[in-house]
Parts: sequence; structure tokens; C-alpha cells
Amino acid sequence: MVATMYDLIIVGAGPAGLTAGIYAARYGLETLVLEQSAVPGQISVANVIENYPGFISTSGKELMSRFREHALANGIAIKKADVKKVEDVAGKKIVLTHDEELYALAVIVATGANPKLLGVPGERKLLGKGVSYCATCDAAFFADQEVLVIGGGESAVTDALILSGIASKVYVAHRRDSLRACKVLQQRAFMKDNIEFIWDSVVEEIIGEEAVEKVIMKNVKTGEMTEKNVEGVFIYVGINPNTGIVELEKNDNGFIITNEKMETSVKGIYAAGDCRVSPLWQVVTAVADGAVAAISVQEYVTDLKLMR
Amino acid sequence: MVATMYDLIIVGAGPAGLTAGIYAARYGLETLVLEQSAVPGQISVANVIENYPGFISTSGKELMSRFREHALANGIAIKKADVKKVEDVAGKKIVLTHDEELYALAVIVATGANPKLLGVPGERKLLGKGVSYCATCDAAFFADQEVLVIGGGESAVTDALILSGIASKVYVAHRRDSLRACKVLQQRAFMKDNIEFIWDSVVEEIIGEEAVEKVIMKNVKTGEMTEKNVEGVFIYVGINPNTGIVELEKNDNGFIITNEKMETSVKGIYAAGDCRVSPLWQVVTAVADGAVAAISVQEYVTDLKLMR
Repeated sequence: MVATMYDLIIVGAGPAGLTAGIYAARYGLETLVLEQSAVPGQISVANVIENYPGFISTSGKELMSRFREHALANGIAIKKADVKKVEDVAGKKIVLTHDEELYALAVIVATGANPKLLGVPGERKLLGKGVSYCATCDAAFFADQEVLVIGGGESAVTDALILSGIASKVYVAHRRDSLRACKVLQQRAFMKDNIEFIWDSVVEEIIGEEAVEKVIMKNVKTGEMTEKNVEGVFIYVGINPNTGIVELEKNDNGFIITNEKMETSVKGIYAAGDCRVSPLWQVVTAVADGAVAAISVQEYVTDLKLMR
Repeated sequence: MVATMYDLIIVGAGPAGLTAGIYAARYGLETLVLEQSAVPGQISVANVIENYPGFISTSGKELMSRFREHALANGIAIKKADVKKVEDVAGKKIVLTHDEELYALAVIVATGANPKLLGVPGERKLLGKGVSYCATCDAAFFADQEVLVIGGGESAVTDALILSGIASKVYVAHRRDSLRACKVLQQRAFMKDNIEFIWDSVVEEIIGEEAVEKVIMKNVKTGEMTEKNVEGVFIYVGINPNTGIVELEKNDNGFIITNEKMETSVKGIYAAGDCRVSPLWQVVTAVADGAVAAISVQEYVTDLKLMR
């Protein structure tokens, strides 16, 4: 039996991966998209998306279901697989999954990124027992309870707003005295009666036995320590790219370095979307990355086939 | 009367301009989008678009009407105006239209580009009915059909190669007896079994009722006229970026040079979409450019206001 040699394997089925798939299929490349099941993508847990042009207001789940349908309509194969490793062996690419080896002429890494841990005592122990990184997933468990959001960026404020519709009170602890989130989001948050900002403050510990009971906070300007009784802690302190499966040139945070053609440090391996260094991580930038990666693969694979 | 000083004026209401508008509005910037009425954008004349994720099949007109609605829903102003000039005067930006002067702290140039017409009978009539200027956009519509590519430059040969993976036969008609495209591209094209060059030949007419049926060609050396039955005609005789209104660093073809933040050679003036040098010109890349330009403007304008 001869193993299938795909033209292209795309690792990841988020906005970048599925768009790369749509373009690759339309270039006539034999393409397989691998959909990781272990970790849900950031997009699929996004409750409300209002900045993907064409959809005034949608959800990540709805948008991804549309993208998936679009990709399937173009005839690409999508397969569930947990990818362990992507390797280049004498120019051929080997994609090792949990149960098989797959082969391709080119690979696009579109594995996305996942939230960073805060790294304080109690965080891991109370994960799923009051500690969360996703209001969409968990807000419903905190109806009429008090919660604390940690962070001051888009995600923190977006999710504070989601929580404010469900929880009785939402504290937002931020290490600085102003937010990074866009003005529209800030204004909305400031106008919410049940959102209260706690400036210049970091959480030092999350305390509870079977569930979160309280947090210990420190004011970074005065050094004063305080306790706050809350039942939920939502953490937004950054994201980790899912790039451990492949050895490529990366920045200090692990994001893959590419040029404007989405080429990485290894010929025939491309990166697209949240897993690469980019001035902005959004659905719109991910879809652009995916398309550009696909045309780069088209050129690369055409060359490879002619050299045979 | 004091003239309005906008935070941002966006010149152009295509995918890049409208997306920049959506993002700018959500960042709380006072934004005006100027919609040129003189020249319809490339997108608005695209009959069928199947590669903007989320819309399996739509038209340029339909998609742009959705984008417009989305921009308006975010509260941005859109105004019809033929822009004559964009100038930087002591850091302030002046946008001169056919009937007024407008002022802004920042400008995004999103004026697009238009393919040069071949200028033969049948070309306009059969646009979108077999006549195309972009294989990435339209090649998939010609699976197992015969097509003719017109031109001998990079775009012609690149797109002939894309077409060769999808169409059954690709003729390339060029007015000279050698190609302008780089050697690598030439070699690839010469090695493809289903690409055939027709040298020293120009197309005099494109014939068809509801769709392209054939072309009439003339050999410029012998004067001999021939007919060729094809179902698609892809024309690459140049692209004109609409960048005459502004003095910025541009490449030899007039496309604006930017960095990855969409910054141009003039501080506070940004470029996005088809009018800038880019590895790919598509709706997906235009929306990404627009979003990135908006975040760059947001940072620039915030800084400007803090310095007051």
C-alpha cells in the first residue's frame, strides 16, 4: 500500500486554516485540513463577533460553521486529528497525528493560540471550579453571583460585558490605570452599572476549597493587600501560540516568524493566523494569511512537481 | 465657521476602505469614508465571488452592499466625492475633493486599482461571462475547459500556471516572440503540457452571445488572421493603481509602498488594499489591510491628541 501524498496538509480548521483550504482547493491542490479536537479554537468560543465584514453581528460558532460549509463546498477534506509533530524529511513533510503518519509536499500551520495562565496559587486547582478563561463557555454558571475579570485588553472588556448580563457584579482588576481595549468597548463597560474597575491591581492568589471563594489582590502603587469575595475569576492576560508541534524560527513568545508570503524558516512549511507574528490577530487578518499562504503553496508545489 | 477636523478620512469605499471604517468606528475615531463615484471598483464589477469565506457564492455588488450596511451600522459617515488630492501640510492632512476641502489627522488611501482594458470588441460585453482579469478569482469556473491568456508579463504567466492546474488547455497569446516574465516563471510554463504559447499574436475581437465562444487573433508579423475556440479569456495587459491623488513612495507601476502596519512614506497617511504593493490582491487581503491600517491610525491619533 502506498501512502497518500497530499499536495498540502493544513493543520488547524479556524479562519486561517479553512480559508487556506478554500483557496488551495480552488488552485486545484489536493488538500487535507486537520481539525484538532483537543483544544477548541479561540474563535469557536467567541460569543459575539461584530467586525468580520459582511456579518453585522454573529457568533464564533456560527461563523466557523459557515466557513466549514464553505470549505466543504469547495471539495476539501476535513479530518479530526490531534497533530503531535510536523517534520521536514528531505523536503517531504510528515505530519504525525495521534494514530497515523500523513505525507504532503507542503504544510500550512494554522494552529492558533490559547490563553496564558496567570500563574498564581489556586489558579490550576480551581480551574473549572470558578476559574475560567472564557465567559462564553462559563458565564452561565455565575448567574446572580459576583465575579472578577483580570486584564484590560479587548478580551477582558468584551467578556466583562458578557458577564455583566448574567452575574450580579463584575469587578475588573487591571494592573494599570487605563484600559487597552478600544474606545467603544470602554464606553460600554463604563456605562454598565454592575461593572466596577479596580485599577493598579494584580491578583496574588485565588482561594477556595471546592470552589473559588475569594482572591487576594495587591495595589501595585501603594503595595496595599486586599481581599475580595467572588465566586468566579475570568483571566485575560495574554495568549500562547500552539506552535510546539513544529520546529521553526519563532519569537520570544513562541509565535512563528514568517515573511509577507507566510513562508517560515523551513521551505515548504507556511504559517497563517494567530500562531504567527502579526501586527493584529483578528478573523480578517487570519483569512488574509490563509489566502496568501495558499498562493505561496501553489507556487511551491508547482515547482516541486516540475522538478520531478 | 470652523471646518470639521476628522480623526480619519478614508479615501475609497471598497473592501479595504469599508473595513478600515468599521474598525475605526469601533476604536471610537471620528471617521469619514469618501466613496468615489467616477470609477467603479474592481470588486463591484465582479459577477461571482466564491472565495470570501462565509459567502459560498455571492456577487461583488451584493458583498459590497453588505459591507456598506455593516459600516453604516457602526456609525461611520459615507460621502460621495471625487478626490483630487491628498496633502500633508505641517502634519495635518488636507483632502481636496471636486467641491470642497476636508481636514483630518490621518488618511487611509484605499483607492484600489483597475485592470487595463485590452480595448477590443466583445471585451466589455463578455466581462464576467468568460472575460476575466484574475485567475485566482475566476479560474475555478473553467474546470476542464479551454482558456486563452493574453499577455507575456509576470501576471500573465503566473495566472497561466494557476489556470493550467484547473483548465484542460491554456493558450497564452503574446504580441512578441518572448516573455517579459522572470525566467523561473517562464521555465515552469514551458514545462507544462497543457500550456501552449501563441507568439507574435494579438486578439482583435472576443466573440460570444451569452458567454465567450471564440477569439479572433492576428499574427503581427505575417498579418494572418485566425480563430480560436475558447471558453475563457484572461487579460493581463497591466493594472493601474488609483494613486495619482497622492505623493508617496511608490513602486515603478505606481503602487504605494507600505510596511506591515500599512504606514506609507508620509507620517499619518496609510494605504490599504489593491492600491498598495502586496503579494496578493483579494477581498480577504483588502479587509485585513483595512483593519491593520485602522489600528495603526488609532495609535497615531491617540498619540497626537495626547501631545496637544
